[in-house]
Amino acid sequence: MLIQHLPLLSSKRIVLASASPRRSELLRGLGLKVEILPSTFAENLEKSAFAGAGEYAVATATQKAIEVFRRTCEAGKLADLIVAADTVVEIDTQILEKPLDKEDAMRMLTSLSGCKHKVYSGVALVLPSFSDPALDQSPLIRSFWEETVVEFAELEDEAIHAYAASGEPMGKAGGYGIQGIGGSFVKGIEGCFFNVMGFPVHRFCVEVDSLVKSGAFSARPQ
Amino acid sequence: MLIQHLPLLSSKRIVLASASPRRSELLRGLGLKVEILPSTFAENLEKSAFAGAGEYAVATATQKAIEVFRRTCEAGKLADLIVAADTVVEIDTQILEKPLDKEDAMRMLTSLSGCKHKVYSGVALVLPSFSDPALDQSPLIRSFWEETVVEFAELEDEAIHAYAASGEPMGKAGGYGIQGIGGSFVKGIEGCFFNVMGFPVHRFCVEVDSLVKSGAFSARPQ
Repeated sequence: MLIQHLPLLSSKRIVLASASPRRSELLRGLGLKVEILPSTFAENLEKSAFAGAGEYAVATATQKAIEVFRRTCEAGKLADLIVAADTVVEIDTQILEKPLDKEDAMRMLTSLSGCKHKVYSGVALVLPSFSDPALDQSPLIRSFWEETVVEFAELEDEAIHAYAASGEPMGKAGGYGIQGIGGSFVKGIEGCFFNVMGFPVHRFCVEVDSLVKSGAFSARPQ
Repeated sequence: MLIQHLPLLSSKRIVLASASPRRSELLRGLGLKVEILPSTFAENLEKSAFAGAGEYAVATATQKAIEVFRRTCEAGKLADLIVAADTVVEIDTQILEKPLDKEDAMRMLTSLSGCKHKVYSGVALVLPSFSDPALDQSPLIRSFWEETVVEFAELEDEAIHAYAASGEPMGKAGGYGIQGIGGSFVKGIEGCFFNVMGFPVHRFCVEVDSLVKSGAFSARPQ
């Protein structure tokens, strides 16, 4: 697990390639010091090119991480770890991202009402100073995604209108925030809660634990 | 749902009979204004007298709410709604409450490691100004409990020691906080996440919605 590696990790430069306040809050809640450097990647991959929503989310996360990796290289300020993530909601094979406006949020919430949907968060970890032997001088990249099933209660129109008017749906995949008032709509989940917030905390800790044990954070910068 | 009733509820005096910062945070996150008046109930009910951990938790919550109800009556300052809750962890028919000390926390975490356990939060809602017709002049009491299954990863001794040393386990049923570093130990859950934090948010909103619709918050104080 991650907690016993905090003394080692506290000396590392960890960059979060995301502007999401929820993701930085979750990483800081784990005891990590993180620097925020939001990716400028356009997030415009063609969804139909991917086998599923998880693969799509992880591909977007990887592009975000690589964009920030290049920027830190150009600036000559290599990080020890770059963390990027992308979260999408899937219902009936349709992928929902952030709503465009209030009406779009209401459409999303109406489609989620009374149903189960899936939330996928893809994560990419880039270790600039640790080359993957199989990939010559490229940085080591670890990527993964996690799925959580979320069951929504039946929402009355009054609730959907009041929630859309609150502004909370904006900037959130599927048009709701499970950590906010949107959490009151959720009867239950199956899987990782933090994955629904936008970052699969347990899985991230398992991956970092494995990277530390493989010596990835002890390598000298190249 | 609760959100469309916020304008009505904002004019009501809602008292939370709990010192738990997580419970007040969850209620305030729903948009409710709450006043904190922790119960002094000793929480010493005989566990063996109850059919299960849920029944035990809801009985404790009810006693907490009644104790605060009596205190507000004596002070002549009736609340519109008193909310109390109690959370316990059950593993292999054994109920775990708050750890007594660091060693107790480590014992609890060792027993949870690599296993699934259940978290029960019992809630009691007391409406002092709204008598239950079936109960003469007693206040209306609504109580319920919710169960969530939590699956812990296998924890290495180093993780258990580091976590116990962090102080986070103290004051938390089962010796962990799912909203903190303890969340990194959780592979997944089945049910309401907030129930594990100590308060079943969705179920509470459903009950308050039903109380509002039944006119319970429009009644004149007696």
